[in-house]
Amino acid sequence: MSLKNRVAIIGAGCSRFGEHYDKAAEDLIVEAAQEAIADAGIERERIRAGWVGTISSALSGNALSDPLKLTGIPITRVENYCASGMDAVRNAAFSVAAGMYDIVIALGFEKMRDATLGGLPAPHPVKDNGEAPHVFALSAHRYFANHGASKSTLAKIAVKNHRHGVLSPKAHLRMEVSEEKVLNAPMIYSPLGLFDCCPTTDGAAAVILCRADLAKQLRDDPIYIKGMGLSVSYGAPHYDPTFDYDGFAATRQAAGQAYEQAGISAKDLDLVECHDCFTITEILNYEDLGLCPKGEGGHAAEEDRFALGNALPVNPSGGLKSFGHPVGATGVRMLYELTQHLRGDAGERQVPNARLGLAHNLGGMGAVSAVTVLGNEL
Amino acid sequence: MSLKNRVAIIGAGCSRFGEHYDKAAEDLIVEAAQEAIADAGIERERIRAGWVGTISSALSGNALSDPLKLTGIPITRVENYCASGMDAVRNAAFSVAAGMYDIVIALGFEKMRDATLGGLPAPHPVKDNGEAPHVFALSAHRYFANHGASKSTLAKIAVKNHRHGVLSPKAHLRMEVSEEKVLNAPMIYSPLGLFDCCPTTDGAAAVILCRADLAKQLRDDPIYIKGMGLSVSYGAPHYDPTFDYDGFAATRQAAGQAYEQAGISAKDLDLVECHDCFTITEILNYEDLGLCPKGEGGHAAEEDRFALGNALPVNPSGGLKSFGHPVGATGVRMLYELTQHLRGDAGERQVPNARLGLAHNLGGMGAVSAVTVLGNEL
Repeated sequence: MSLKNRVAIIGAGCSRFGEHYDKAAEDLIVEAAQEAIADAGIERERIRAGWVGTISSALSGNALSDPLKLTGIPITRVENYCASGMDAVRNAAFSVAAGMYDIVIALGFEKMRDATLGGLPAPHPVKDNGEAPHVFALSAHRYFANHGASKSTLAKIAVKNHRHGVLSPKAHLRMEVSEEKVLNAPMIYSPLGLFDCCPTTDGAAAVILCRADLAKQLRDDPIYIKGMGLSVSYGAPHYDPTFDYDGFAATRQAAGQAYEQAGISAKDLDLVECHDCFTITEILNYEDLGLCPKGEGGHAAEEDRFALGNALPVNPSGGLKSFGHPVGATGVRMLYELTQHLRGDAGERQVPNARLGLAHNLGGMGAVSAVTVLGNEL
Repeated sequence: MSLKNRVAIIGAGCSRFGEHYDKAAEDLIVEAAQEAIADAGIERERIRAGWVGTISSALSGNALSDPLKLTGIPITRVENYCASGMDAVRNAAFSVAAGMYDIVIALGFEKMRDATLGGLPAPHPVKDNGEAPHVFALSAHRYFANHGASKSTLAKIAVKNHRHGVLSPKAHLRMEVSEEKVLNAPMIYSPLGLFDCCPTTDGAAAVILCRADLAKQLRDDPIYIKGMGLSVSYGAPHYDPTFDYDGFAATRQAAGQAYEQAGISAKDLDLVECHDCFTITEILNYEDLGLCPKGEGGHAAEEDRFALGNALPVNPSGGLKSFGHPVGATGVRMLYELTQHLRGDAGERQVPNARLGLAHNLGGMGAVSAVTVLGNEL
């Protein structure tokens, strides 16, 4: 069955993203949750259940209940690599679609710039703590060989997303970068330089979900879930005998599920927030999400096809390149972004007349992908 | 709304519990999942989605997809302290109740006796890795002061559950203990001695869930979910201004939700699997679950009221005392146990004519509780 038009987003909130050495994770959680609750215009007592997504910043539903003093209700922690936040929303949406609760909260967060759970040291600001740069660097080399792109092609993604990010008040990095600056930046993992990678960032984002048939009683402009897909592949590329480093099956499968539920195809979309953890990832996402044919993502990047002002803006927020990637927060932050555009509230970065938007996460070096389609009409 | 009679268990599996130094977590996962799938009598291709519960043995849905080679479908990891496994089942059940998938798998597991995630050393066999013995020891002292029990009262729980555990082929510890042996055992955290604590154990358990209206097509004796409750309290007792060390609000709330959904009260139950991480916990559970009045749990223990052969057996499996507590596995292992009794397949430990059973987890020193009621009739 489909999730289409069964669950509405009636509130959304997002903390300022950045290196918040002066804040605890709890501060960011409160900031995002209070904005979402105020945006929904509800008393917090109406929240009947919660879901919280984080990869390693906390354990259990207490990650949400303690900072919000929200006890005596069910709260579930979901973890699914970089899709943790979006999968928290997905499970929350299932509970609402099942009629278990009328109004629930789903929140994602991560504290990346302090000691993580168990007192492990914080990751270095310019490298991932795991092997992600390695896999995506190999994917870039494979893409260059298969489709004729170059390091300059990748740089176009960084230039576009940082240009967009200047328009996002809550982004971590709000600065334009030139192609020359991207190409001359320190190398992280060849061919990926500093500006081919997203920064290491703290942040939180939240949505309030409601039964679609009750949503109009609570606000005039609810946003509706049209479809949510999730797919897992193997946990590491070398486990997967079919992995060829040229795109990700999990994204194609998750997108297929979401499009099918929504009853649409990529050409119906007005905007996309996709997982640009590295510049090459966004190019591969174009193809995996069906925004352009296989092998054409590099050309699309070179002609700036998906910039704000064109027919289908991708990452109008500035993407992970500008917001960073506080793991559990990112998927929910993307849904926050779509919600602003679908309501016409996105300010300087507004995509005109946006009616359908897609958000996409890719995690665990291709191991998991989540895709959500939202719309502003029933 | 209620989950009552909307979701059925059509298959259940459980690994042998124990100190499996010779096995990886993946071996235990395969053992439990294959038994559940075979028990359901389905082809594994009919499984349309998965949920996996673990507190720290793995990350992401790949914890399930990799060992089972079950890729291309959605798999979510749920973590909620000691309720991780039962909450994985709860979220799986919501998806089925929402009509999203006809058949799904939910599996819980933990590898406790080897290095855990991140290479941390394995916990010492006779102590918890956190502060659980501390909080439950204080609860025991408070119970003694409030209600007149003693260390001998606690020992009755160990004697009963180890007597039951001898009848469970898959239990970790299968041996009777005398009250004298319990009372003379090494002290762990006064007044809790070695046999007041559950052992440190590896294990996995799985259930196959199906839409209730399809279940009879797949087997003659499906077991139905009657209600599932979950509640979070504060993450640590000292955060909670109302905590008095005499019972746990989360258990009372989760049980209230489950009873209300099922439309029953405790007196309708035929058997209970409850969270006896420590002997005092089972006594407090009697009261919090409504199996006896407040303050009477110690008397009930002393008269062996909840032993096999009496009207309402508690922990006929032998409980955590006999099975140990591989965190993510425990809640699902309890549902496996209820399923055996409700089908009449529990062998020597069978509760006669069992029609309604309850399973209960308590985690995070009272921070979270999950309660499930199962029945064998629509």
